[in-house]
Amino acid sequence: MFEIEFLGTGNAAQVPVWGCVCIACARAKQDNTYRRRSASLAIHTTTGITLVDAGLTDLAERFEFDSIERIVLTHFHMDHVQGLFHLRWSEREERIPVYRPDDALGADDLYKHPGVLDFQPPLSPFKMIDVGEFSITPLPLIHSRITLGYLFEVYSPAISAVCKIAYLTDTVGLPEATQNYLADAFIDILIIDCSEPPRDQPPKNHNDVNCVLNIHNQIQPKRTVLTHISHRLDQWLMEQAAQKVKAVLPNEVTVARDGQRLSCF
Amino acid sequence: MFEIEFLGTGNAAQVPVWGCVCIACARAKQDNTYRRRSASLAIHTTTGITLVDAGLTDLAERFEFDSIERIVLTHFHMDHVQGLFHLRWSEREERIPVYRPDDALGADDLYKHPGVLDFQPPLSPFKMIDVGEFSITPLPLIHSRITLGYLFEVYSPAISAVCKIAYLTDTVGLPEATQNYLADAFIDILIIDCSEPPRDQPPKNHNDVNCVLNIHNQIQPKRTVLTHISHRLDQWLMEQAAQKVKAVLPNEVTVARDGQRLSCF
Repeated sequence: MFEIEFLGTGNAAQVPVWGCVCIACARAKQDNTYRRRSASLAIHTTTGITLVDAGLTDLAERFEFDSIERIVLTHFHMDHVQGLFHLRWSEREERIPVYRPDDALGADDLYKHPGVLDFQPPLSPFKMIDVGEFSITPLPLIHSRITLGYLFEVYSPAISAVCKIAYLTDTVGLPEATQNYLADAFIDILIIDCSEPPRDQPPKNHNDVNCVLNIHNQIQPKRTVLTHISHRLDQWLMEQAAQKVKAVLPNEVTVARDGQRLSCF
Repeated sequence: MFEIEFLGTGNAAQVPVWGCVCIACARAKQDNTYRRRSASLAIHTTTGITLVDAGLTDLAERFEFDSIERIVLTHFHMDHVQGLFHLRWSEREERIPVYRPDDALGADDLYKHPGVLDFQPPLSPFKMIDVGEFSITPLPLIHSRITLGYLFEVYSPAISAVCKIAYLTDTVGLPEATQNYLADAFIDILIIDCSEPPRDQPPKNHNDVNCVLNIHNQIQPKRTVLTHISHRLDQWLMEQAAQKVKAVLPNEVTVARDGQRLSCF
């Protein structure tokens, strides 16, 4: 088994944004299934769960301590690590390995009081690590903090196939080396930061739809899934749908939802 | 109306503690009413809500933007401010006044990116501020970060009486000036950090039951309510109850529960 669950697909403000009455926020407030919590994944395998980022603050209620094999962090912005401030105070003797980019600051006092979190030496870009059931290759991204995307690769003996899923958030565009690496890798599923609707100028720190479509065309994955979504993108998607205009997103580009599960096999 | 609601009554680990199987954590896991989230209050008046600390991360779901008049922070440990990292990204034009102790660091990047949070100049110890329906007097506490307790005073014309409620967390013991101030003030309700069961030596940074009973005897409020409670204190209270031993806590000392509401009038 290698299944990716979107725990959250929202940006730092989440959807609904507090106090906002736009159509996207109103919809999410009325119907929880449209809510977007902080962007993060749970990777489910037969041996347990790998969390990719920990922005959700109810992780202790969602996952038993013993089910979590490791945590992999993209970067140390609060919406990606907030859930750890509570988890760390578990009094279990076992410690949970936490993989991370080379960011000496971390977030607030996380490094000072790690509790059960066992921060591993920083990951090196493009240096694959094998965690048993799958491998993880760190990929540099372009953001306001040192940030890594990840290529997850898992081999299925049953069908003699490798599943390759790239998770690229937070980023605006991609470093050339990362883009070339992924273009050469024949990616099955590209999950990517798409915070904003199309803009004349690319936004700061995060992709808009134009950036993502450009990356999609360069890397040519079998499919691309948008995440780290703002209420502005949701609103734009709703307006496009309402106007019944020709689809702006190609068929192989879809928008993630909280709770959605993905797998190659 | 002047009503205090305990949004949370737990310490930084909360109850249940992740991965813990003690009787207190098992009970809280089975029955949500025994859960203890991060210690914090909502003060309800006829004009709106004052949040005292913001450790809960679902404040946007609990409270409409327009209902929050102000936020009052005791200190900048993450379990007391965590909920602000999400709230700040509201895109409303109005800003929410945030009162705080004189802590130049704040928490993570809160000061750098305050969003809708309007951090007020630091409060001065013992210098009362009038916020309309009630007054707030900051009281220095003893903790590992610069921390203020608060005395809330509200006058009821209907019964020509003043209600005085002190909220003292996080602290171990009290500075002499704070203790004397409160002893002279004739407090109705003293809400106080009691993280730990009785210990031979007072713990670091937080009160145990012995510290609290000593403070209770010095200040002599009409009643004392314990908060910022660890699973260890809950477990000790359960054991005391099971053994049917003579009550350790005097009748006028009670233990807060999440969701509980208090008022003088």
